[in-house]
Amino acid sequence: MDDSMRTSLIRPLLVIAALCAVTGLAVAAEKPAQPNIVIILADDMGYGDLACYGHPTIATPNLDHMAAEGMKLTQFYVAASVCTPSRAALLTGRYPIRSGMTQVLIPKSKGGLPATEITLGDALKKAGYATACIGKWHLGSLKEHLPLNHGFDYYFGLPYSNDMSPWAQPTNHTFDGDPPHPLYRNFEVISRGEPDQSQLTRWYTDEALKFIRTQAGKKKPFFLYLAHTFPHVPLAASGQYKGKSRRGLYGDTVEEIDGSCGEVFKTLKELGLDDNTLVMFTSDNGPWIGQKLDGGSPGPFTEGKVSTWEGGFREPAIFRWPGKIPAGVTTRAFATAMDLLPTLVGLAGGEVPGDREIDGVDLAPVLFKNEPGREPLMFYYFNAEVWAVRKGPWKIHLKTVYPAASKKWGDWPVTEHNPPLLFNVDEDPGEKYNVAEAHPEIVAELAKLIEQHKAATKPGVSQK
Amino acid sequence: MDDSMRTSLIRPLLVIAALCAVTGLAVAAEKPAQPNIVIILADDMGYGDLACYGHPTIATPNLDHMAAEGMKLTQFYVAASVCTPSRAALLTGRYPIRSGMTQVLIPKSKGGLPATEITLGDALKKAGYATACIGKWHLGSLKEHLPLNHGFDYYFGLPYSNDMSPWAQPTNHTFDGDPPHPLYRNFEVISRGEPDQSQLTRWYTDEALKFIRTQAGKKKPFFLYLAHTFPHVPLAASGQYKGKSRRGLYGDTVEEIDGSCGEVFKTLKELGLDDNTLVMFTSDNGPWIGQKLDGGSPGPFTEGKVSTWEGGFREPAIFRWPGKIPAGVTTRAFATAMDLLPTLVGLAGGEVPGDREIDGVDLAPVLFKNEPGREPLMFYYFNAEVWAVRKGPWKIHLKTVYPAASKKWGDWPVTEHNPPLLFNVDEDPGEKYNVAEAHPEIVAELAKLIEQHKAATKPGVSQK
Repeated sequence: MDDSMRTSLIRPLLVIAALCAVTGLAVAAEKPAQPNIVIILADDMGYGDLACYGHPTIATPNLDHMAAEGMKLTQFYVAASVCTPSRAALLTGRYPIRSGMTQVLIPKSKGGLPATEITLGDALKKAGYATACIGKWHLGSLKEHLPLNHGFDYYFGLPYSNDMSPWAQPTNHTFDGDPPHPLYRNFEVISRGEPDQSQLTRWYTDEALKFIRTQAGKKKPFFLYLAHTFPHVPLAASGQYKGKSRRGLYGDTVEEIDGSCGEVFKTLKELGLDDNTLVMFTSDNGPWIGQKLDGGSPGPFTEGKVSTWEGGFREPAIFRWPGKIPAGVTTRAFATAMDLLPTLVGLAGGEVPGDREIDGVDLAPVLFKNEPGREPLMFYYFNAEVWAVRKGPWKIHLKTVYPAASKKWGDWPVTEHNPPLLFNVDEDPGEKYNVAEAHPEIVAELAKLIEQHKAATKPGVSQK
Repeated sequence: MDDSMRTSLIRPLLVIAALCAVTGLAVAAEKPAQPNIVIILADDMGYGDLACYGHPTIATPNLDHMAAEGMKLTQFYVAASVCTPSRAALLTGRYPIRSGMTQVLIPKSKGGLPATEITLGDALKKAGYATACIGKWHLGSLKEHLPLNHGFDYYFGLPYSNDMSPWAQPTNHTFDGDPPHPLYRNFEVISRGEPDQSQLTRWYTDEALKFIRTQAGKKKPFFLYLAHTFPHVPLAASGQYKGKSRRGLYGDTVEEIDGSCGEVFKTLKELGLDDNTLVMFTSDNGPWIGQKLDGGSPGPFTEGKVSTWEGGFREPAIFRWPGKIPAGVTTRAFATAMDLLPTLVGLAGGEVPGDREIDGVDLAPVLFKNEPGREPLMFYYFNAEVWAVRKGPWKIHLKTVYPAASKKWGDWPVTEHNPPLLFNVDEDPGEKYNVAEAHPEIVAELAKLIEQHKAATKPGVSQK
């Protein structure tokens, strides 16, 4: 090979490299086999609250872009329609009945996630990850229940909901005698008075970016669980977001979370971590509709938070990992928040606990091969009771409540259905047309499923 | 320059060209200044019926992809919540009151779009376009009202709704004595019996592709107005789409229309017309909710077809023109179907009629520069009466109906509101929280706007 041939071979390669940089094509480099993992969780946000899920006035350009670069799920379920059980299930891969975490904990609660439970933090830490929990915890306020005792190396945030202090909820006597919200760093309470809630998303974001930057240079992969406090009431937003959204204060808080996601993506890109990091976004339960304009939208579904209607359990869910997860795909594959543990621990090459029931399933075929996924099977708990089940397109309700119409928390009359209500939730996502009379055999089959599930499921000690 | 330098310059250029081909970057070529224009209109499809607008089970990969390659609007209005007036407004750029096209025409109607009206077909034909109308017309059944007398060179389709024959609607006596649906080609009825409605989308698509292919080689630009018959009842789908959707037969028809859009995009790409063709997709009015599972979803909005609630007037709207319209943008810019005439005629370098009121506005700044657009101003007509107005985020209702709850067409009690209802439709898109008491000055301002509009608007001769 003479020099001019060499030149003419080398120059095109330089051009290719330059063009790849311009067009954003990644030049392959050595990477750790374990991807970084980021879960971003909103609080009380509904299926219908993002522009990429049809909201007409809330601007969520970063999450829309995340969906365009990744996969958007339209049949994603959380395991409960209130905070504590939903979060317990997300972190353990198990129905909350198994851990006894079936009800919302309050500041005075002595209960919390049992030490015997294995969280995503535990499993990923064991697999070699640096782990951080930033934001709302809500799995127990006593020291033994805090994140650092559940697999997280680092914690910053509020240990429970942002309405759970007499300062945050002055007209409600439930929290009289409780302290102002304790803002924790690891085991230490770093604020004395009630923290300025308008700064929470900002502070969480700064902590998250700091954690990512700190970990970026290290050999260890990282797991960040970023659990926002908003759009749970009382609503507050900071600086540029305050008063900005056409959707009012509720929209401000969602738009600030969207902005926070944008900062996370920007930082990952800057640090060259973009294509070695899986990011997923969802919320813990459906919208608190009874809060009127301070509550979110279930989109096409009925009801929201607390209820066992679809609006309580359906959430936006977006997964992004450039180069691994196909871009711009909307999938109707059934998935639940309990799938995160087996999916992510599997990706990390870690150990999915084999000594206990795991209710989630590995989503890898859906996420990486765009396969249609498994047949839907979902038990809808109201506290420790199964009130409904979905199998395939069919769902029966044994009992229902309509919390959206209730003026006071807990004041929701329970209606028992005998025979149960039957809906085809694929064809009738709004659960408007009860077809129980036409399909008694399906009703019977699903009622039997509930009995079998109850018989086979050992409840943990209640942590209420 | 010696040979080796020449070689080393040329080779990288070849590499660039190859990479551009691989990465989909267009190599600029000479193009006619006037873009081809395609409007695809669905019938009775709701804001919530596409996956890219949040539908959980209807699969619309082609329209989702169109949105990812183009712009998706979340504040797009049609000018009426029933077929005839909405279509008259879309084609003329004017509120239907001006043309007298304020009510739904039936087969026996002698009325139709007056010859004095200037349609998109007229204006684009005058600007040098080959024009075709394929699908549902519904602007008059007499020869003088058919598409070839309104600016279209070619017509293929049904002249009115697919339920308007005794064959299509056997239990309803409204259309007794009417003929089977006449399927037209130009002025000729080409079917004798009732056509097989399951084939309509297929036939329309074949005609559309044939028109595009025929025009592709010609110097003239083309305008295709492809107005589908579905998902209007009675529902029917063909071949691979029948029984396929998780959303049932309604979903089948939407998925077949999505497939038809995919065929249009594929054909444009094959013919090299992709980046010289503007395609827009919308529907004529909100969903016919009273048809239960045979009707669509208004998404987060209240009510649908016939009503003056947001669900009647809000539609999905997607614009795509690769290289001209920014890709993957979701905009909350206010826009209406009446904007299409000034926008598209403007793009074509044609003449927007100057001798009459045009209610639409050129959307070019929104579409090509992603500007936020104008302040919303929308008059909601029920037949020939203004029942509501929106200005900015505010909307008042003077009268309302709830057709979704009515068992029979036309059997909807009218409620008068004195004082009017007031909603902030940006903050409260579902029109749930009447805030008239808190803002009497806004109610008064908007009521005055209606009076001014009525005083300034000369009704055309009614074509009912």
